[in-house]
Amino acid sequence: MSQSFDIAVIGATGTVGETLVQILEERDFPVGSLHLLASSESAGSSVMFRNKNVRVREVDEFDFGKVQLVFFAAGPAVTLSFAPRATAAGCALIDLSGALPPEQAPQIVPEANAQVLAGLGKPLQVSSPSASATALAVVLAPLRECLDLQRISLTASLAVSAQGRVAVSELARQTAELLNARPLEPTFFDRQMAFNLLAQVGAPDEQGHTSLEKRLVRELRQVLNQPLLKISVTCIQAPVFFGDSFSVTVQSANAVDLAKVNAALEAAPGIELVEAGDYPTAVGDAVGQDVVYVGRVRGGIDDPAELNMWLTSDNVRKGAALNAVQVAELLIKELL
Amino acid sequence: MSQSFDIAVIGATGTVGETLVQILEERDFPVGSLHLLASSESAGSSVMFRNKNVRVREVDEFDFGKVQLVFFAAGPAVTLSFAPRATAAGCALIDLSGALPPEQAPQIVPEANAQVLAGLGKPLQVSSPSASATALAVVLAPLRECLDLQRISLTASLAVSAQGRVAVSELARQTAELLNARPLEPTFFDRQMAFNLLAQVGAPDEQGHTSLEKRLVRELRQVLNQPLLKISVTCIQAPVFFGDSFSVTVQSANAVDLAKVNAALEAAPGIELVEAGDYPTAVGDAVGQDVVYVGRVRGGIDDPAELNMWLTSDNVRKGAALNAVQVAELLIKELL
Repeated sequence: MSQSFDIAVIGATGTVGETLVQILEERDFPVGSLHLLASSESAGSSVMFRNKNVRVREVDEFDFGKVQLVFFAAGPAVTLSFAPRATAAGCALIDLSGALPPEQAPQIVPEANAQVLAGLGKPLQVSSPSASATALAVVLAPLRECLDLQRISLTASLAVSAQGRVAVSELARQTAELLNARPLEPTFFDRQMAFNLLAQVGAPDEQGHTSLEKRLVRELRQVLNQPLLKISVTCIQAPVFFGDSFSVTVQSANAVDLAKVNAALEAAPGIELVEAGDYPTAVGDAVGQDVVYVGRVRGGIDDPAELNMWLTSDNVRKGAALNAVQVAELLIKELL
Repeated sequence: MSQSFDIAVIGATGTVGETLVQILEERDFPVGSLHLLASSESAGSSVMFRNKNVRVREVDEFDFGKVQLVFFAAGPAVTLSFAPRATAAGCALIDLSGALPPEQAPQIVPEANAQVLAGLGKPLQVSSPSASATALAVVLAPLRECLDLQRISLTASLAVSAQGRVAVSELARQTAELLNARPLEPTFFDRQMAFNLLAQVGAPDEQGHTSLEKRLVRELRQVLNQPLLKISVTCIQAPVFFGDSFSVTVQSANAVDLAKVNAALEAAPGIELVEAGDYPTAVGDAVGQDVVYVGRVRGGIDDPAELNMWLTSDNVRKGAALNAVQVAELLIKELL
């Protein structure tokens, strides 16, 4: 088992790409050579890996024949441009952008649907879902044992880091301006983000749903293998730097046995269940951690078939970079 | 119609009490003499009313025989202590604390259930619901025309001002500490509130529900006169100074006709419907306003019987002080 893999990470200078490289090192992933790639603007900088600076190079000029596995951690356009070249060169790929259809690259969350990998043709093409779908799938998957999931209604309060470093800086800048009673000048966000909640992340379609919301519903149904599951979702932007939080109501066809729910959550991988009466927060618990935190597990006020929970997860780490690496850990077994 | 009323406001130095006094003046309420009352700690200060400083006096020493109408804008204990004295003196009362049972003092939101007032015995005793129940009732009441409401699932993101001035100061202080990289020392909140979301407001009961959540459910059912309406609610604390926001999913027994929903919201009093594609925010829209803002009105992603909305409302003004004054405006017609 000393085999190693030559790997490319596209989008290596972004928040997710950088964390992904860090996690490859932390988890001692069998990396042979590591190729960090980015668009021409970001190329030229370098990222630390195993105590060495690895230079970030232009993806345009990359020869995919050099690697066996590629992570696509940039935007959907980059995936659509370069995935064909990667697969033509025989590379396995893991896409984090949501660009590829599930028939081509199914969404995988190892805690929920690892078995999907075994049925795939080569070169292996897999998607790592949006941070929200990943966190929710980790928690909902083990509940299928004890609940007959009919409907999920959720409000996802997303951290600004999902929108990149510019959004993080703007929240800090807006906050400082307000505390210092200076005039507020929103730039990245179209209005005041500090001390406020924005009800919409991205532009809505004609029906009023954002692509993030539609993506979450699509991915969650696919990962849970419940194509008819009813999901109501509102994704809002919270003035939080890192860590997504989810207020979740589940309707089951059967009465909810809270003891069984708690036992299933305790036993499941990738979850930290906080004690009854307490609750986790993005900042205090989830950030920097490898698990989805779950708290406020409770029934309905008077509906025996209802379950309510509060989830929080590091959107960059657990929601994106770590899930992709966990998928890679499974995937290399198929490559061996 | 030149009759005026002698009025007492208990809790006059709190955020709600102070706003209530201001609204009595703004709306030219027929106030004869105004008696501002508070606990012994707050007595002695003064509040402006019609260009005069009105001294705040101790409620303990007040002779309720001097007034015809009393607003209880302090905590439940104060209402329970002094409501019997007020009614014994023949005063009408409006309680904002939630302390009185609905049989004694029904919850009233003028836009939703004004008709309840006509059936009450004297002295009139009325409750003004929690800020969340008030905002939701204003919006849900007119939807009963076009929807057969079966279930409401909601996440209420509450402003810190609902917890008083000390909570407002602490959010500001925590934020400044973090921006200046000083160690965070939570005092009022038990953990970091700045740049974070707290999943629970107040202590939960054995089943995991907070009293705020149970109050909201109880009040909303009473005001909408739908005692069997299923309501799932999570009240969270957002790092927002003023203005509550609500992510609401409604399940109807019939298919949702969005044109009818929009028309009903447009026509209803107390509501400002923002244009499709846009959404209101607490800070940018609701604060300081007399209406509940509604946006992101949309169906389910594929459930025709689902309706989703985003609401935002000034918790101190529309949610509490203004609603109490609106109730008073109806109530004095009964007293005349």
